[in-house]
Amino acid sequence: MLTWLRHYRREMLAGDIGAGIIVTLMLIPQSMAYALIAGLPPVTGLYASILPPVAYALFGSSMVQSVGPMAITSLMIGSSLATLAPSGSGLSIVLAGQMALLSGVILFLSGVFRLGFVAGFLSRPVMSGFTSGAALLIAEGQIKSLLGGPLAAIHLPSAVIGLTSLLALWLAKNHLVRGLTAAGVAKRVAEMLAKLAPVMVLVAATAAVAVFDLAPAGVQIVGEIPSGLPAIALAVSGEHWRPLLMPSLLIAFMIFLSSQSAAQSLAHRRGERIVSNRELLGLGAANLASGVSGGFAVTGSISRSAVNYAAGANTPLASVVSAGLIVLALLVPTTWISWLPLPALAATIILAVLGMIDLATLQVAWRHDRSDAAALLATTAGVLLLGVEQGVILGVVLSLATVIWRASRPHIAVIGRIPGSEHFRNVERHQVETLPEVLLLRIDADLFFGNVDAVIDHLEHLLKERAAEGRVTRDVALVMSAVSSIDTTGLYVLNEINGSLQEQGIKLHLTEVKGPVMDRLQRSTLLKQRLSGQVFLSTADAFSHFAEQAVQETWSI
Amino acid sequence: MLTWLRHYRREMLAGDIGAGIIVTLMLIPQSMAYALIAGLPPVTGLYASILPPVAYALFGSSMVQSVGPMAITSLMIGSSLATLAPSGSGLSIVLAGQMALLSGVILFLSGVFRLGFVAGFLSRPVMSGFTSGAALLIAEGQIKSLLGGPLAAIHLPSAVIGLTSLLALWLAKNHLVRGLTAAGVAKRVAEMLAKLAPVMVLVAATAAVAVFDLAPAGVQIVGEIPSGLPAIALAVSGEHWRPLLMPSLLIAFMIFLSSQSAAQSLAHRRGERIVSNRELLGLGAANLASGVSGGFAVTGSISRSAVNYAAGANTPLASVVSAGLIVLALLVPTTWISWLPLPALAATIILAVLGMIDLATLQVAWRHDRSDAAALLATTAGVLLLGVEQGVILGVVLSLATVIWRASRPHIAVIGRIPGSEHFRNVERHQVETLPEVLLLRIDADLFFGNVDAVIDHLEHLLKERAAEGRVTRDVALVMSAVSSIDTTGLYVLNEINGSLQEQGIKLHLTEVKGPVMDRLQRSTLLKQRLSGQVFLSTADAFSHFAEQAVQETWSI
Repeated sequence: MLTWLRHYRREMLAGDIGAGIIVTLMLIPQSMAYALIAGLPPVTGLYASILPPVAYALFGSSMVQSVGPMAITSLMIGSSLATLAPSGSGLSIVLAGQMALLSGVILFLSGVFRLGFVAGFLSRPVMSGFTSGAALLIAEGQIKSLLGGPLAAIHLPSAVIGLTSLLALWLAKNHLVRGLTAAGVAKRVAEMLAKLAPVMVLVAATAAVAVFDLAPAGVQIVGEIPSGLPAIALAVSGEHWRPLLMPSLLIAFMIFLSSQSAAQSLAHRRGERIVSNRELLGLGAANLASGVSGGFAVTGSISRSAVNYAAGANTPLASVVSAGLIVLALLVPTTWISWLPLPALAATIILAVLGMIDLATLQVAWRHDRSDAAALLATTAGVLLLGVEQGVILGVVLSLATVIWRASRPHIAVIGRIPGSEHFRNVERHQVETLPEVLLLRIDADLFFGNVDAVIDHLEHLLKERAAEGRVTRDVALVMSAVSSIDTTGLYVLNEINGSLQEQGIKLHLTEVKGPVMDRLQRSTLLKQRLSGQVFLSTADAFSHFAEQAVQETWSI
Repeated sequence: MLTWLRHYRREMLAGDIGAGIIVTLMLIPQSMAYALIAGLPPVTGLYASILPPVAYALFGSSMVQSVGPMAITSLMIGSSLATLAPSGSGLSIVLAGQMALLSGVILFLSGVFRLGFVAGFLSRPVMSGFTSGAALLIAEGQIKSLLGGPLAAIHLPSAVIGLTSLLALWLAKNHLVRGLTAAGVAKRVAEMLAKLAPVMVLVAATAAVAVFDLAPAGVQIVGEIPSGLPAIALAVSGEHWRPLLMPSLLIAFMIFLSSQSAAQSLAHRRGERIVSNRELLGLGAANLASGVSGGFAVTGSISRSAVNYAAGANTPLASVVSAGLIVLALLVPTTWISWLPLPALAATIILAVLGMIDLATLQVAWRHDRSDAAALLATTAGVLLLGVEQGVILGVVLSLATVIWRASRPHIAVIGRIPGSEHFRNVERHQVETLPEVLLLRIDADLFFGNVDAVIDHLEHLLKERAAEGRVTRDVALVMSAVSSIDTTGLYVLNEINGSLQEQGIKLHLTEVKGPVMDRLQRSTLLKQRLSGQVFLSTADAFSHFAEQAVQETWSI
């Protein structure tokens, strides 16, 4: 905790302050926009940008993470609150804070109980599909704001502001850097200016509203932002704990995943290590802080963290600086913010979230593994058709389904001895020696509940095949060189294989059992007492034993 | 389809008819009891025992499976219907049929699309925990029937019948076989008589009700069973498709799992093979048949199938015989059934489900793998505290969580060369040679989204450790001999490792990449274009290459 402060060096300060200023310029409009997506008053977005980053600075592990409101979690908050409280109402503010508290507790406890491994519940293709689906949902939700009304009843002044902003932003995003560098501006400066383009567009739009007095003409504006700091208070609704629990769990999961991927991609570049359990503690603290200070669920934002890093942030001090600047902004008169037109804000959201739509991962997955690509597309479809919460659940189910699907086809090879050696190879790929009444089977996967049925099935299939060819089988040896764990279901199935073979007059042997696996098998009296055959150290030993046995039997006839 | 009929031999007939009669004696009271658990009129249980087994005989793959009502699926039906329709009402009958149809369609389509692998979504310990929890729920629900009222207001005549039946059944189960064989009865006959004990107890209880005219005294009886066969009709409620979908999906899943484990345990003994996709078709057909003939969701029952097998069933003809006998029972006057007292029926249910509570698996799991034991206990607790549907979901999540939990700690070994050989072994366990600036890392697991974070983490940890010891690293070689697949997430992570090492001035090499894995890596331009190092066929090649490179560099200085 706070190791970064103990090792702080004076020369880091300039970078941290500069990054803090730039992130604040991004954060003020962004946090208000995300509050609107969550169905909350804009000022709650600013509140969620003060204490949470400071709490994260105390407990988190990333040096350059920018913690605050984020598009997808805001969408999830909005969709959960929709059925519980009217948009923007006092109850919705209380419930949003309560969700942040619940998510904070869940994240914090997950950190304490070292549950960081749950990040492994979503594959990247599925996460990409989820993000794209959520981005489309958010963009679709903003079209009404952009045009000042539904498609059938566009409000012209609003639409002009919205579409002009959208065009300006698009140009800035796609052509500004090139234009500026062509005009002789240094590339680093040009890139920074391009990053600040959204702010400049919003300032211009706000100025237009103020100068031409467009608000009375029907252009919706952010409206009055209460001046002053949020109260620190614990406001909760007793009857809503239960309906908020499941959404908070899902939001906590997405908070962790988003933040983790933001932190990790930057840590790789900085040669740092993210400790996922510390990350959980940091995010838990940030959300608890948000919940008691008028905010809503927060997480690390990939885009903002990248700006923070690019702007020269060295430590979480940059976030503390940014928090201080937002406090300042709330303490000075806030009328200037209130004129910000919603159509221009919608334009920045739409352009930002459309950038989150990720076709590259689909392309890579399609080429690399069709089942990953199918899971990606199904998750996007799930988010669009069923909603964002169901989308998370579907994503987890699909990620894990691909694991079980792959596991359900374990590689199992019938092997034989390469003549004159002690090496054993697949009979289908190599010229090898086999013994007529012996089946040597190498299992190339850990045995667990997801693949044991396939193992039994394969073995039964091979035995039937041999029987159909008129070949007698007297010994089956399972070569366990690639099996590094056997779960309880696997243990049961080994037993059943042993019993079933015994009834057919076949002995079951094991060879090359790894140390840790053998330790467990020996602890379970099950296998030890019942195994019809032997455990051989090496397959070569087993092979010699069976060969000798065959010779002896020939002699005894 | 119907291969068993084409190969039917006359000598199989006696066994099939005998088993059909015995199963019918079990099925008549059992099916009515399960209907009551599902909150449906008793006669629907009989209806669910006519067409479904015949449909299964046409499409299923097990020879001795007894398909019909089952305790756990009935509990799930009851819990789903509880919020939608009053117990025993006309609507509840319609909705139960509709759920059977939905489950049937889901099962049938799963068979068509070959989704049999979903059986691998639940580990056996978790299945055992689920079954125990469901058994406790069912038993608890029957106590009121057993005693004729809640504990505070017991109905004495009912309680006498209930508790006497319970005692008689308990004695029959635990002492009858020993007693009869001691009295000189053959063991096989004694065992069969013990299996029929529940029927005899029920006949005695029914006789007592009839003789002493106990029904007017307040002993609850099954009541009038409408004589005649069920109408074949498609009765559904249009507005209930949506609320029934999720419960039907969960019930379909449990139908498949229960039936699969019943069929498989018997198939092992008979040396047969169960094809899970054919099993899905059979169960789908059975449930569709149940849905159009006044029944509810059915599945293969472990206990009844075991009796069927033990009584000599050779083919599904036994089930057809049983279906015919139930038709007969419905065509003759059914008054005799109506006198069956509910307390006695509750006693048979309680004793049957208490037999499903499985402590042995807990014991085995506890010894073999604590995480399996924890998942088992958590599932039981989940069923008891959250309900049976949530219990299924929790069970799947916990099963898969154990997979990800194990995967999140992949075995990764730093290896070196055994002097004078081409073998490479773990540096911590063997005396091996290493090169000072080279890190050889063997990954002993398939790379997928569940373990890639751990791989990166481990690598970064090793590099930091080496740096702390003042050792320079210039080459990292990943030995892929144990990696038989890399998913899309794994592909991304390999790329990121490559990039991150490159920024630190370290080259990444791969050795012993398996054929199928290499095929995929080559298809993805990603790795091919960017890999900073080389791909070596063998680790020995890589080792010689690095050693030579070191010598050359020494010379060039």
